[in-house]
Amino acid sequence: MSSESTAPVGIIGLGSMGMGAALALKDAGLDVVGFDISVEARQRLLDYGGREAKSPAEVARQCSIVMTVVVNSRQVETVLFGPNGVVEVMPQGGLVIQCATVAPSYARALGERLASAGIGLLDAPISGGAAKARQGQLSVMASGKESCFQQAAAVLDAMAGKIYRLGDAPGAGSSVKLVNQHLAGIHIAAAAEAMALGIRMGLDPEVLYEVISNSAGNSWMFENRVPHILKGDYTPYSAVDIFVKDLGIVTSTGCELTLPLPVASSALQQFMAASAAGHGREDDSAVIKVYQHLAGLKLPPAESE
Amino acid sequence: MSSESTAPVGIIGLGSMGMGAALALKDAGLDVVGFDISVEARQRLLDYGGREAKSPAEVARQCSIVMTVVVNSRQVETVLFGPNGVVEVMPQGGLVIQCATVAPSYARALGERLASAGIGLLDAPISGGAAKARQGQLSVMASGKESCFQQAAAVLDAMAGKIYRLGDAPGAGSSVKLVNQHLAGIHIAAAAEAMALGIRMGLDPEVLYEVISNSAGNSWMFENRVPHILKGDYTPYSAVDIFVKDLGIVTSTGCELTLPLPVASSALQQFMAASAAGHGREDDSAVIKVYQHLAGLKLPPAESE
Repeated sequence: MSSESTAPVGIIGLGSMGMGAALALKDAGLDVVGFDISVEARQRLLDYGGREAKSPAEVARQCSIVMTVVVNSRQVETVLFGPNGVVEVMPQGGLVIQCATVAPSYARALGERLASAGIGLLDAPISGGAAKARQGQLSVMASGKESCFQQAAAVLDAMAGKIYRLGDAPGAGSSVKLVNQHLAGIHIAAAAEAMALGIRMGLDPEVLYEVISNSAGNSWMFENRVPHILKGDYTPYSAVDIFVKDLGIVTSTGCELTLPLPVASSALQQFMAASAAGHGREDDSAVIKVYQHLAGLKLPPAESE
Repeated sequence: MSSESTAPVGIIGLGSMGMGAALALKDAGLDVVGFDISVEARQRLLDYGGREAKSPAEVARQCSIVMTVVVNSRQVETVLFGPNGVVEVMPQGGLVIQCATVAPSYARALGERLASAGIGLLDAPISGGAAKARQGQLSVMASGKESCFQQAAAVLDAMAGKIYRLGDAPGAGSSVKLVNQHLAGIHIAAAAEAMALGIRMGLDPEVLYEVISNSAGNSWMFENRVPHILKGDYTPYSAVDIFVKDLGIVTSTGCELTLPLPVASSALQQFMAASAAGHGREDDSAVIKVYQHLAGLKLPPAESE
């Protein structure tokens, strides 16, 4: 399929997830226009045959479909409603595919605000990590009007291995993503606490990992993140501060709904403690370093040491 | 293999795990002598071709290998050291295979106490549930002397699908089991909290289960226990009060080691709350009922309703 055969698709936010999705869209033959504040990120897209824009508005001038793959709702606000933002130039009938993890209440309100400008919204958080983004194999947890799904079909096909259609209004996609983040965050904090306990009890961490990952105590996150701890490699695949943010959305949503969430709250405090101790931009498995600071826990050294 | 070809093996505690193991040992051709305070349990073993004893001492009079598959360390104390207990009659060279979940410090001290009576100890907590026990497919997390492993070989082969040899002294087996229970307990409390959040946000719980069990938020426990919630079936496969006990051992071990365990502590409080509200003997997934009591959460009804 040649690029010329399809309408251009805009992507705002070319971090590990956005860049992965952008390149996967290129691989699928789509014409991609990207924006990021990082010149290097834009250059990488250009090198792969994509196009760049110098502002969100410039993306929206060329594309009737714009994906936002930014970090949080503040950035969504800036790129959609700020100066040189999407909404001031996007024509009626345009579509925003919003992929950042945001509060369900924010996603619902965003749907209404965009609708009043004649713009559709697919509430479409993504999951799977940078590698799956690059392969076009993300999980997309999406809700929105049937017409929005139809308009987005080629884009979703190119970026997703699995598309969950969760309802016909914005909010449901973000709600399911929030439950996923609730569990993912707790499971990482629990994995770190469990490894800290095992190490303090004198167990060999490699043996402990082997047994637990074959037992009822296993989780997707335990299996995926504990190897980072065993290698002493805290290169950020996903950073501690992402879970400070996401578990913050979880607990504030609990407050909105008057639903106590004590387990999520305890996990949030662990990520906050890790961030306070200077590990916010390290891999989220660095939440185990809280035990190093507080209790002198001896962690496996980096393999190069 | 006929029963007559092997030395008799004693099993004290014929609950779901102990009975499963006893019958699996019978299936493997071993001669099994069982004791439980429940006459019905002893009769079930008799009906299957096993033998019964009327006290722990009577088991130990006939068997040089005795397994304890009881609920907690208090019961271990009673059956080993109480009146008509194992230790007062077991000859030197006997072996105790201790399977209950206990504190590692208790298991270590037990090894020393039994050694001073000339009795070996395999610290051998089990995992896998009643069905795997019955199939002889338990996971055994064991530590103890090489000679104890040799003495126990036929028994371990008959009861276990996987045997983890974790070191040559009691304590390591119970330490690994404790880490498993730390994670298992947190994951059940997290699964309940996550489903409560999803239901309160208006999501369809069946759809939510389908998405999460295929996403990074999944855990062995989420996948295994949430179906009980979806069916409204709180028949106790493993009861809330088991995790009040096991997370109690986790947090008291944290205290012994001066290691803060805030995530496990928050999960323990949820099981304690469920027990306080009258659900201690229901399935551990009934920890979600805390949200029903506090926040009027509407849970899926039982399928028969």
